[in-house]
Amino acid sequence: MTINPQVSIVMGSDSDLPVMEDAAKTLKEFGVAYEMIITSAHRAPEMTTDFAKKAAPRGIKVVIAGAGYSAHLAGVIAAQTVIPVIGVPLAVSPLQGVDALLAMGQMPSGIPVATVTIGKAGAKNAALLAVEILALSDGSLQKKLVEYRRKLAAEVKGKNRKLK
Amino acid sequence: MTINPQVSIVMGSDSDLPVMEDAAKTLKEFGVAYEMIITSAHRAPEMTTDFAKKAAPRGIKVVIAGAGYSAHLAGVIAAQTVIPVIGVPLAVSPLQGVDALLAMGQMPSGIPVATVTIGKAGAKNAALLAVEILALSDGSLQKKLVEYRRKLAAEVKGKNRKLK
Amino acid sequence: MTINPQVSIVMGSDSDLPVMEDAAKTLKEFGVAYEMIITSAHRAPEMTTDFAKKAAPRGIKVVIAGAGYSAHLAGVIAAQTVIPVIGVPLAVSPLQGVDALLAMGQMPSGIPVATVTIGKAGAKNAALLAVEILALSDGSLQKKLVEYRRKLAAEVKGKNRKLK
Amino acid sequence: MTINPQVSIVMGSDSDLPVMEDAAKTLKEFGVAYEMIITSAHRAPEMTTDFAKKAAPRGIKVVIAGAGYSAHLAGVIAAQTVIPVIGVPLAVSPLQGVDALLAMGQMPSGIPVATVTIGKAGAKNAALLAVEILALSDGSLQKKLVEYRRKLAAEVKGKNRKLK
Amino acid sequence: MTINPQVSIVMGSDSDLPVMEDAAKTLKEFGVAYEMIITSAHRAPEMTTDFAKKAAPRGIKVVIAGAGYSAHLAGVIAAQTVIPVIGVPLAVSPLQGVDALLAMGQMPSGIPVATVTIGKAGAKNAALLAVEILALSDGSLQKKLVEYRRKLAAEVKGKNRKLK
Amino acid sequence: MTINPQVSIVMGSDSDLPVMEDAAKTLKEFGVAYEMIITSAHRAPEMTTDFAKKAAPRGIKVVIAGAGYSAHLAGVIAAQTVIPVIGVPLAVSPLQGVDALLAMGQMPSGIPVATVTIGKAGAKNAALLAVEILALSDGSLQKKLVEYRRKLAAEVKGKNRKLK
Amino acid sequence: MTINPQVSIVMGSDSDLPVMEDAAKTLKEFGVAYEMIITSAHRAPEMTTDFAKKAAPRGIKVVIAGAGYSAHLAGVIAAQTVIPVIGVPLAVSPLQGVDALLAMGQMPSGIPVATVTIGKAGAKNAALLAVEILALSDGSLQKKLVEYRRKLAAEVKGKNRKLK
Amino acid sequence: MTINPQVSIVMGSDSDLPVMEDAAKTLKEFGVAYEMIITSAHRAPEMTTDFAKKAAPRGIKVVIAGAGYSAHLAGVIAAQTVIPVIGVPLAVSPLQGVDALLAMGQMPSGIPVATVTIGKAGAKNAALLAVEILALSDGSLQKKLVEYRRKLAAEVKGKNRKLK
Repeated sequence: MTINPQVSIVMGSDSDLPVMEDAAKTLKEFGVAYEMIITSAHRAPEMTTDFAKKAAPRGIKVVIAGAGYSAHLAGVIAAQTVIPVIGVPLAVSPLQGVDALLAMGQMPSGIPVATVTIGKAGAKNAALLAVEILALSDGSLQKKLVEYRRKLAAEVKGKNRKLK
Repeated sequence: MTINPQVSIVMGSDSDLPVMEDAAKTLKEFGVAYEMIITSAHRAPEMTTDFAKKAAPRGIKVVIAGAGYSAHLAGVIAAQTVIPVIGVPLAVSPLQGVDALLAMGQMPSGIPVATVTIGKAGAKNAALLAVEILALSDGSLQKKLVEYRRKLAAEVKGKNRKLK
Repeated sequence: MTINPQVSIVMGSDSDLPVMEDAAKTLKEFGVAYEMIITSAHRAPEMTTDFAKKAAPRGIKVVIAGAGYSAHLAGVIAAQTVIPVIGVPLAVSPLQGVDALLAMGQMPSGIPVATVTIGKAGAKNAALLAVEILALSDGSLQKKLVEYRRKLAAEVKGKNRKLK
Repeated sequence: MTINPQVSIVMGSDSDLPVMEDAAKTLKEFGVAYEMIITSAHRAPEMTTDFAKKAAPRGIKVVIAGAGYSAHLAGVIAAQTVIPVIGVPLAVSPLQGVDALLAMGQMPSGIPVATVTIGKAGAKNAALLAVEILALSDGSLQKKLVEYRRKLAAEVKGKNRKLK
Repeated sequence: MTINPQVSIVMGSDSDLPVMEDAAKTLKEFGVAYEMIITSAHRAPEMTTDFAKKAAPRGIKVVIAGAGYSAHLAGVIAAQTVIPVIGVPLAVSPLQGVDALLAMGQMPSGIPVATVTIGKAGAKNAALLAVEILALSDGSLQKKLVEYRRKLAAEVKGKNRKLK
Repeated sequence: MTINPQVSIVMGSDSDLPVMEDAAKTLKEFGVAYEMIITSAHRAPEMTTDFAKKAAPRGIKVVIAGAGYSAHLAGVIAAQTVIPVIGVPLAVSPLQGVDALLAMGQMPSGIPVATVTIGKAGAKNAALLAVEILALSDGSLQKKLVEYRRKLAAEVKGKNRKLK
Repeated sequence: MTINPQVSIVMGSDSDLPVMEDAAKTLKEFGVAYEMIITSAHRAPEMTTDFAKKAAPRGIKVVIAGAGYSAHLAGVIAAQTVIPVIGVPLAVSPLQGVDALLAMGQMPSGIPVATVTIGKAGAKNAALLAVEILALSDGSLQKKLVEYRRKLAAEVKGKNRKLK
Repeated sequence: MTINPQVSIVMGSDSDLPVMEDAAKTLKEFGVAYEMIITSAHRAPEMTTDFAKKAAPRGIKVVIAGAGYSAHLAGVIAAQTVIPVIGVPLAVSPLQGVDALLAMGQMPSGIPVATVTIGKAGAKNAALLAVEILALSDGSLQKKLVEYRRKLAAEVKGKNRKLK
């Protein structure tokens, strides 16, 4: 948690924290200031509206919203702000995240949500997408992304060598 | 459309009207006063919040909400009122309503939506469910429901006789 | 279990009890009198018919029916009463409740079932929906619902504060 | 339609007739006496119970039940008779019969339904399955089945020759 | 395992035994002579063809075939005999039996397979369906089935009483 | 098509044009310079790699990639650039876009794709998401977005009035 | 149709011809001798076994099998030959080929089927895969494949230029 | 791992090794020289392109590529080589391999991937398919395949005897 966050990681419940922390860890790696918020489109609609409306004025550039079941959190926030909202579908119901994927990913025309992978891979990718967005106007972030990609490739090569 | 509606039929777009009119027709048959509203959880969130908050004070007893894609309309309204909300998933995307069914029907714990069948059958059933709810405190409606059921059975028998 | 139940919680087997108890607990919290019944549309069809026909005369206002697999319990009861029937699809087969969801939620036109979320979240939401229905003619219940929602929102806020 | 039917073809609505007639045609080809019945587990539950209970005493040996949506017809009949019930899932909802397939085919333990293919192929196969069952105690039917299979194979060979 | 089996329980692998034994147990309860066979449509096609062709001549009346993945066993046997073949889809792949259900249950027109529920519930129901078929020409079996149904209902009532 | 495009709309085939044009129309409305490119991850891999690597150096800020079937286009581009890539799954195979949705939307950890709705709604939302991203460093675009949202809401209100 | 075919295109019915002809056309383009066969795993099992057993001795190198519904054709052939079998799932049932995809593509361990895309795209790809296999020991075919790929890429470039 | 490998087993991560080793074991049994490679279409695109382009020149005859999530590995390699590529969808995401199956198996027209079963059964079948392909020009391999099939059948018979 830092001062003047650029990214807000929002989730519907503290039980989503172990998954959504992967988004936080990744942002930390890139030195991007973030905050973590628990709010619920269903159980705390006013708080969610309040969050959505104040996000941009508070200087938030990107929202990452993780939710499961009929996941409305990302869509409800997206409907009330014009900054990019990234949705992470969570596999917390017996349907293993298919419900959340379709409840987030099939937004009707007019209000976009940038949906990523279900679960932990999605939490990480949401953070990387946020960094890519921020890097458009931040050359040092762009360099870090290039370096991150270089490391990813190097890791793969390392594993390949080790296998042999 | 009548004075002092008890049921509010809400839909996200005028393109949903041909399906949702089946709800209206059924309510009319039962003599239940209703209104039809177009509002969108995504494109008109304030109007939707306003609708949800004023529904009960205005005397609305039951909300029927039809929506397609990542259908949030029923859930967003349900989160902001304590009167029963019935959701009708609409088959308007290439996924034929599976998206709307899961986006409406898999509500997380705390805020219920009474989900019915996808499409026209659902619009009619939503109205019948609303009538069943209203009939709990309206003996004449209860009689009409019993009569309706009697007719349904008679119709089946009639078709059966005709087949023979 | 209390005298003069208003809500009947019905399930197909005692193995469904751990899930359906969440409906009971929630009704208890709201002070709504309920009963719990085991009956099976398939293994005990006469008992089910008997239950369905006597429910309204006995003063039952809402039925909550939980079932898994090709879940017929809610639909079979709904076909034989005109009080609202809420269906809770249970994730007890290898298909994780998709079968029960479609077997309950896609009722043909004429006989509505108010389907809620698969599993425990659904059991709780079924109870809340029942309370919402009963609250239409019970001002004190309506107040309790409003208070419940207030608590839900406060809980979210509390968790959010704790996170920070 | 003939006297002393051995097979009863049941369907929920006259709109299912164009599909279920394929079952009738096939039974006719085999000279098996059948009847066609319209009854609905949901809209005419008493008629359905009455049908199910009297089927065996009336001399019916096999029931073929076609239904769509949350198709309960086969299961409800199967629960009230001990003669074999064959279910034909119909593709009449936007979900193209997946709902009917799971609502029929995932019967809980204790009450079997013999589910066949969705739609027209299923109606025909249901009739063939009924003939196979009846043929167990009818040598002439068994011969007809062997002959039918011989013709199927010959047809394939004929088409293959024509292709060349 | 008994002399002169009437039902043949076939499975693709000995790993399917723990599920398919439920079919055997149920047949035993009804005093129906059965055999258990391991053969594979894929790994032992000649043995399977041989089994299918000799089943009827050996006096087998009904085949129960359990298989997982792209389950062909039931269909391949059904294609080579005119006695009824019941298919039990097994949930042994990561797709939890959806693959087996569709590979068995969607037989093309001409060759029927009587598909039952995925997994253990299906194994039991397959046996009950076999008994229902055999009971058509065996009055004592029919009585046992009626008695079995009576017990099922009594069990439900017993559980219901215990709950109270 | 304009000089110095900020957004590149890429698609696998000219047959995708009627859908992807909705992205172009929306960008035009917002005055955002864009280009349209046909390239295929499968049929023209070198061209795609070349496109991906040169996109950022050419000044492209956001890529919108539409593809159907096992849609790899968005992922393959995303793997070779660090600017945000938005994926539009197209409903061009018999699976109605479920294949493209999962082939785009379930990216493994490390390389994000911002997936939007299947089909035309997705093409439009992809453009809006691109505008939201660009607006982070372009105040006039942000104003246009706020104005666009205002119009969306007004349109809903207009339709609602007309309905009454 | 030519002398000494290397590839055998097999299908279950003449109604599959319009799709499977795409495989034939592609083989023709590459100058690969092929034959077209109608046989059915279900309706003509002996013919299918006969085909499978004689394919390799007759000089067939690769089998392409197209089938719909519970598509067993590819698997049944694969079980009776050790030459590669390519399966093309056909979208001919109401389930749009999902049934055929899983009935072909989820072969149990021991007998492989090389499954390709559902429908026409799959028929073409099956032929290309067959050519790739044959090209392993035919340098001129390999050159044609490289040329084909060059043309595919050129076509994409041509369409891209035309778009501009 | 041997000199002059004919088959290359490629996977996206070392975590895929426990599944993909089944391919290696099977190739070993057949005495087919193979190599194992870790490379990622997403995290190491250049390495993957390099691998794909050099595979054929290095003497690789068949590529087996295992990947999960939006599995692009097989398709990306297939797009850059004209030797056969076999795809093994891995069940590593919450969707249990459905995502990988559709991301691999629904390749658009022009670039084939030979997709096999999800998971371990697929890894083994991929190896067997590779052997079948290689056996087309290697009589000793063909004999081993025939012998392998004989053993498979013998194993089934052995298990059947043991059961009795």
